Amino acid sequence: MHVAMGQTEAEATRCSIERTLAIVGEKWSLLVLREVFYGAERFDDIQRALGCSRDILSRRLSTLVEAGILTRANYRVPGERTRPAYGLTEQGKELFPVLLALMQWGDKYVAPPEGPSVLVRAKSDDRPVRVEVTTDGSHRTVSADEVTFAPGPGHAERLATSSGI
Amino acid sequence: MHVAMGQTEAEATRCSIERTLAIVGEKWSLLVLREVFYGAERFDDIQRALGCSRDILSRRLSTLVEAGILTRANYRVPGERTRPAYGLTEQGKELFPVLLALMQWGDKYVAPPEGPSVLVRAKSDDRPVRVEVTTDGSHRTVSADEVTFAPGPGHAERLATSSGI
Repeated sequence: MHVAMGQTEAEATRCSIERTLAIVGEKWSLLVLREVFYGAERFDDIQRALGCSRDILSRRLSTLVEAGILTRANYRVPGERTRPAYGLTEQGKELFPVLLALMQWGDKYVAPPEGPSVLVRAKSDDRPVRVEVTTDGSHRTVSADEVTFAPGPGHAERLATSSGI
Repeated sequence: MHVAMGQTEAEATRCSIERTLAIVGEKWSLLVLREVFYGAERFDDIQRALGCSRDILSRRLSTLVEAGILTRANYRVPGERTRPAYGLTEQGKELFPVLLALMQWGDKYVAPPEGPSVLVRAKSDDRPVRVEVTTDGSHRTVSADEVTFAPGPGHAERLATSSGI
């Protein structure tokens, strides 16, 4: 059943998926967000984690700040120059289900044979969290603040350690 | 809390989010999937809906078929040449929460003032479906086959109609 939606480019532009992708629908933007969800705050930490160019990262961070997804605040280590630190706004935190849905699909279909590289668990009871599609609005959704991220069996550091490198 | 994950590019490559983005983490690929979820099957229909170049669409469709997300089968209208028709594999259908999570965020933060452009409801009881993050694996997740997509208040066609164009 084709519901005849998005028949023109102008129409498609009105769709929430496309509007959202216009902000975060770019590989690097989603990976930048992943790092900030994991706890990275500083430009250098994010850049090291992603291995992308400083130029790309700088542009992506600015887009995400302008879109109200990330905050940028200055911090200063004594004796060093002032640097920006990044964090998620409430709006940004609500992208957690998008990243978790991507992770969940990837864990099932494209994870390394060892298993998932990252385990996401609820702080409250240490149980794994999952994305579900439901019509039952009665149960409260678990927020990004309420989970921990830990290396899983397919995590590179663990693999490197177990192979003695 | 930075859990020191994804410290190198090689490591990041192992993350399920990044592996998934390598397949679908490109604006056009996700929009192509959106159209197929909405029921489009033919190249021309998808191309008209997205307004992207035939070249880009052709490449994205091939990538999604090779990744096992879309099926490609031939169909033939009498008197016309054989053409490919696209559909979702089971693996493809399981990307539904990713698109729904993007839509949900977009509906909240970047929808037109009129409201969402698309309404997603369960076939069983016509209630709106939502993505939730949960630790409770007891309730069954609603699949893409079990929902309907209908134009919402912010849908372009409806807007055009109500403004008399």
